[in-house]
Amino acid sequence: MAHPETRETDILKAGTVGALATPALLLDKNRLDRNLARLSSRMAARGVALRSHMKTAKSIEVARRAYPSGPGPITVSTLAEAEYFALHGFRDMTYAVGVAPQTATRAVHLRKAGIDLKVLLDSPEQVAILGEAGRAAGVVASAFIEIDCDGHRSGLTTSDPKLIAVAAELAKAGIKLAGVLTHAGESYSLCTPEALVAAAENERAVAVAAAETLRAAGHECPAVSVGSTPTAHFAEDLTGVTEMRAGVYMFFDLVMLGVGVCTADDIAISVLATVIGAKPEKGWIFVDAGWMALSRDRGTAAQRIDQGYGLVCDPSGKLYPDLIVSQANQEHGILAIRSRSAATLPALPIGTKVRILPNHACATASQHELYNVVSAGSDAIEALWPRMRGW
Amino acid sequence: MAHPETRETDILKAGTVGALATPALLLDKNRLDRNLARLSSRMAARGVALRSHMKTAKSIEVARRAYPSGPGPITVSTLAEAEYFALHGFRDMTYAVGVAPQTATRAVHLRKAGIDLKVLLDSPEQVAILGEAGRAAGVVASAFIEIDCDGHRSGLTTSDPKLIAVAAELAKAGIKLAGVLTHAGESYSLCTPEALVAAAENERAVAVAAAETLRAAGHECPAVSVGSTPTAHFAEDLTGVTEMRAGVYMFFDLVMLGVGVCTADDIAISVLATVIGAKPEKGWIFVDAGWMALSRDRGTAAQRIDQGYGLVCDPSGKLYPDLIVSQANQEHGILAIRSRSAATLPALPIGTKVRILPNHACATASQHELYNVVSAGSDAIEALWPRMRGW
Repeated sequence: MAHPETRETDILKAGTVGALATPALLLDKNRLDRNLARLSSRMAARGVALRSHMKTAKSIEVARRAYPSGPGPITVSTLAEAEYFALHGFRDMTYAVGVAPQTATRAVHLRKAGIDLKVLLDSPEQVAILGEAGRAAGVVASAFIEIDCDGHRSGLTTSDPKLIAVAAELAKAGIKLAGVLTHAGESYSLCTPEALVAAAENERAVAVAAAETLRAAGHECPAVSVGSTPTAHFAEDLTGVTEMRAGVYMFFDLVMLGVGVCTADDIAISVLATVIGAKPEKGWIFVDAGWMALSRDRGTAAQRIDQGYGLVCDPSGKLYPDLIVSQANQEHGILAIRSRSAATLPALPIGTKVRILPNHACATASQHELYNVVSAGSDAIEALWPRMRGW
Repeated sequence: MAHPETRETDILKAGTVGALATPALLLDKNRLDRNLARLSSRMAARGVALRSHMKTAKSIEVARRAYPSGPGPITVSTLAEAEYFALHGFRDMTYAVGVAPQTATRAVHLRKAGIDLKVLLDSPEQVAILGEAGRAAGVVASAFIEIDCDGHRSGLTTSDPKLIAVAAELAKAGIKLAGVLTHAGESYSLCTPEALVAAAENERAVAVAAAETLRAAGHECPAVSVGSTPTAHFAEDLTGVTEMRAGVYMFFDLVMLGVGVCTADDIAISVLATVIGAKPEKGWIFVDAGWMALSRDRGTAAQRIDQGYGLVCDPSGKLYPDLIVSQANQEHGILAIRSRSAATLPALPIGTKVRILPNHACATASQHELYNVVSAGSDAIEALWPRMRGW
């Protein structure tokens, strides 16, 4: 099925990077396409479906590039995302946040409207809530059981007797068991290929074992869903896994650089900023991008290389050696040379434009209304792709 | 002059807190009004104008409550704010971020449209840029010289010879010198009344000295503008100061609680969230408010009491003892008892609503589209006040 034609972005007028009001979010289309192709070909080679997570991009235009032949299976982090992508033709989606009474009601209404929306749960209480919502709406709900593979967040361990109990409750409540779902959240804190390969294998093994436990108890467990951007790129064996979830892989960011999943040249989004002053005696250059444009995320603070609030490039994307956003106020960023570096502060007169690579693509992109889409080597803004937000 | 009638919010339908989709931003109108009255009466008693900073609230409805008798003098952090408040009848504003070529052009266009917009600068380069923009637009620009009172950010020190040089350049370029402006950024890291009184006095003394230096050199320097929420509340003497700037005082937050400017009962905004699970063996309760709803701000991490990603209340606003948001993923928050506390985790079944007080009001509010306005003791949402965003 082709994507329906709802290109509301055609009405927006594009221009040049040089003429953009700053701060502004840039998206490098070539890097995006390369990142999309890298993971989708990796999964295709392993026969595993890629259920991309839309929480990073939150954009129908990006989703269309991720699924060029038509709406594919997606993951969403909010029901507002589910509704937005449903309006744009996506049908097969998983809402990967534990379900509660109000979200259960809203989710079954989407199911009633023909959207194959699966929800997530890990307790008999949630089964009762979802069963009640499904009965009230007159639809059969569908749920993943969340599995905990690394103690990172919610979910049941494979050995927890509640695993079979929850599956039994689902059956009694007339809810479809979609499968098991786990997320190797721990992988974001790793930084060696060996550790990432091991985390991916653990994620796979735990999910498959949970599915086998359920199947041995007589429950159908069609899907075995795993995923995080690091494990998606380092998994060597995906036997038993039916689908991979990942979101930040589309854009990448400095945290993923620190983990070792990408290079700086793969990072597809950046914040364009303008130099507004300097304090040479302190080694400071001021730009008009503070935490409102960059987000407060300091995910690299715990990594081997602390990137401050971001790494600084010239407008063409070339990195300034060791120049980072060392501090951020609401609308001010302070550029400085990383501590213990021998690099010198570049001369950047007032009005100079810079591009800042973000720590965390999900957080930085969410500070902006839209993507200014650019291609390497060109000053033209080819398109403006709006982002959705809210819950 | 009365506020023009542009109440677009009347078209929005309000409901009850109990029926709100979560996460959602609540604004307690009683607390807001109390906070507004506290600082405006403090300034009125000292004969100092209050030029409220709109970067925190970004809402015309909040601005109208801050200036009940009609549009007053405001500070803005972006030109999008300047344009938004201008459209709603505000005329006297200061854009408190250093000016650069594109913002100079946009600012003088606002001046040409009748808005008394002052910009900020601290270098001869910026004077040249602003002068050029003013000539091109055929208007007389107006600028504050930024003064550095505590080494926190940009600005000139009183003894810097550039101070008089910049004033002379302004005169030559035909730009009006609005005055001097400083911000005691250091005050956010303080936590005793003595230190705050001293920071306020330093802010005042440096600003007044800068103005006197300019006047002694023959420059008119009408405004002496100081401000930060902590110093605004602790200044004992404001001799020579003509106006006070503050923004977060409208809502307050946990950082301000740690500084000692407010009590938890003064914090006017909170994020309503729903319990979606638990992991009792780890002492964890999961809610559907992660950093997307709370922001990544960890401003209390450097304070004596680290509030994690926020302090947790019941829906009526009553604090649970030592219950904080200890971790935050994009759409998940993990509630836990603060370390080294003897408090016990409350029983909060799935579906329970909680209210989370934010670390940083500016950052948390910016994650939301609108304020759900409530009053103490009532479940009714009295109004929906949209927020503006972007640059």
